[in-house]
Amino acid sequence: MSKNPFQIYSDKPITVDGIYSQAEVGLANRNSGNLLETLALDITPTGCHYLLNHFDVPVLDPKAHRLKFSGSFEAPFEVSMAEIMNLPAETMPVTMECAGNGRAGVSPRSHSMPWMYEAVGTSEWTGTKLAPLIERSCPKNSVVEISFTGADYGYDMGEPHFFGRSLTLAQIKELDVLLVYAMNGAPLLPQHGAPLRVIVPGWYGMASVKWLTNITALTEPYDGYQQVKTYRFKVHKDDLGIPIQTIRVKSLMVPPGVPDWSTRKRFVSAGAVDLVGRAWSGDGVPIVKVEVEVAGEWRKANLLEKKHRYAWQKWSLSWQAEPGEYILRCRASDMNGNIQPLDPPWDQAGFANNAAQRVHVFVE
Amino acid sequence: MSKNPFQIYSDKPITVDGIYSQAEVGLANRNSGNLLETLALDITPTGCHYLLNHFDVPVLDPKAHRLKFSGSFEAPFEVSMAEIMNLPAETMPVTMECAGNGRAGVSPRSHSMPWMYEAVGTSEWTGTKLAPLIERSCPKNSVVEISFTGADYGYDMGEPHFFGRSLTLAQIKELDVLLVYAMNGAPLLPQHGAPLRVIVPGWYGMASVKWLTNITALTEPYDGYQQVKTYRFKVHKDDLGIPIQTIRVKSLMVPPGVPDWSTRKRFVSAGAVDLVGRAWSGDGVPIVKVEVEVAGEWRKANLLEKKHRYAWQKWSLSWQAEPGEYILRCRASDMNGNIQPLDPPWDQAGFANNAAQRVHVFVE
Repeated sequence: MSKNPFQIYSDKPITVDGIYSQAEVGLANRNSGNLLETLALDITPTGCHYLLNHFDVPVLDPKAHRLKFSGSFEAPFEVSMAEIMNLPAETMPVTMECAGNGRAGVSPRSHSMPWMYEAVGTSEWTGTKLAPLIERSCPKNSVVEISFTGADYGYDMGEPHFFGRSLTLAQIKELDVLLVYAMNGAPLLPQHGAPLRVIVPGWYGMASVKWLTNITALTEPYDGYQQVKTYRFKVHKDDLGIPIQTIRVKSLMVPPGVPDWSTRKRFVSAGAVDLVGRAWSGDGVPIVKVEVEVAGEWRKANLLEKKHRYAWQKWSLSWQAEPGEYILRCRASDMNGNIQPLDPPWDQAGFANNAAQRVHVFVE
Repeated sequence: MSKNPFQIYSDKPITVDGIYSQAEVGLANRNSGNLLETLALDITPTGCHYLLNHFDVPVLDPKAHRLKFSGSFEAPFEVSMAEIMNLPAETMPVTMECAGNGRAGVSPRSHSMPWMYEAVGTSEWTGTKLAPLIERSCPKNSVVEISFTGADYGYDMGEPHFFGRSLTLAQIKELDVLLVYAMNGAPLLPQHGAPLRVIVPGWYGMASVKWLTNITALTEPYDGYQQVKTYRFKVHKDDLGIPIQTIRVKSLMVPPGVPDWSTRKRFVSAGAVDLVGRAWSGDGVPIVKVEVEVAGEWRKANLLEKKHRYAWQKWSLSWQAEPGEYILRCRASDMNGNIQPLDPPWDQAGFANNAAQRVHVFVE
């Protein structure tokens, strides 16, 4: 056994395409992905929404829970869950995606949670707007950022910390940030941040701090581990990096036909096949086009209009499947002119891979 | 691309300890495990109960759903969900474990879902007893088994099939088999078998068929894939094997302290540490002893009495932790004299590994 416990994770192991370590599988067993067949539904079934928890789930008592507003506020205060639940409530379907989604497709892969496509989901979140609570506590003129701290605590690369993130005051005004206590019409589940979490619509999931205990007004930019050491686009490991924020344009299809148990390759009967899926982009930017590649030809899918600003859009395409072996792909374009790449964009830690999904299909 | 689609899974790849294939990680991303910290709770939070689904989740309409009793019954019939929900209802906490739990610890490992410890959970299941419905449909004298078929369909080792299992008439009488439509007080979720599933308390999870559509009276033993080709203890791949049924005696602890994100090794502050966990055995046999190994010494834990026949029992042990590096282990003994082994029992497919859990801890 090693003498120095920090030694064990001071350098991330080298990865090999298609081969994974025990630690990566441990993370995959803990952090559950969406089941792509449920992309047929507007709202991801409770329990199917992806989960990425850095540390252990704190099991908190909602009756005793307090949210503290402290730091450089003129009027620091704290609130109970009952008080938060008495504030004006809003329910909003929000598509959330993990910043690490698609990591397994980036080569060489960063040694971390090996998501393929499944770290995305859409839930109906109920809570109250954050901005009025920030106004109520009056940030001092010198305040530049507001930090959010969760009750989840542990080590990453030898650094112990509570999970925390920050937003600028401008971002809080621009984004429809919610403090959330219910999901799909039921009280928030422990593993999703009960009794209280943040939802930052349109941003990758790391911004939506769970098990929220503290909101702090800062006169210097927040330097918490999860803000400055990770969740940044880096070309090399030692780059300072660019903060990851808005979700990149992306689409996924329900894999057609039926699966093989272990490989998940798909078997489809020849004839008419309804291909269906979802597409989304960050900051609520609408999707304007989805294309599906069949046998080398990109076909335009039928795209439903956006129903809710921050929720994914449904698309479909009827395919006359003829016997053979296919790699189906889909890609979306958003109103800002962003289009999914066909190959994974490079990032040292495999973040935000929005390359077109590939689905291996046999038509019989 | 291969010409023969079946070629791709006709032979399972060789496995190497601690190294996993893309297909195994794909299964781990789909099939979600319990979060061991929730072992502190009597009932596993909704969405944290382990999931092992062989094929895609069928999204079924409860209003249109029918359960058919057919085959060698004197009085075959079918029932709607409304009719089933009008029958006498029973709610029962049941500890369920996947037969593949612990597979990653068996060497060489079978190439399949790489569970470590997390494929277990306890939910409160609500439904109606199966036995009266079987009696109502009057199995003919020649009937030897009753089969249960789900709506989930796909391929395994080249064989297309609906997931199905069987029980003998004697087993149905002896086991408290339920037809279940609710879980933890809410309607069954799609991924757990909505609108109707079987629960066979005390047996590994494969017996508890989800998305139940057909109950069939058979005059010959059932020969479905999931009954005869897998879920059997085999020394070699070509053994006929012995059917896997009752859950083996087992215990797990909540990993103490806080984790490192990627390795999940644990950091504990020196001083008094409350170790807590759960223990269970098949067929509702009570646990009589739990021991925890600390620094080579096995200490007897405090064990709570069984509260419900088919639910796990809580145990705890106060540990005065001194600085150092430890591998903690726990093991349970049941009333029938079964005790957990320290090393994984051999099975060709890595089934039912109930070896004592190992938790790597640093005390600071």
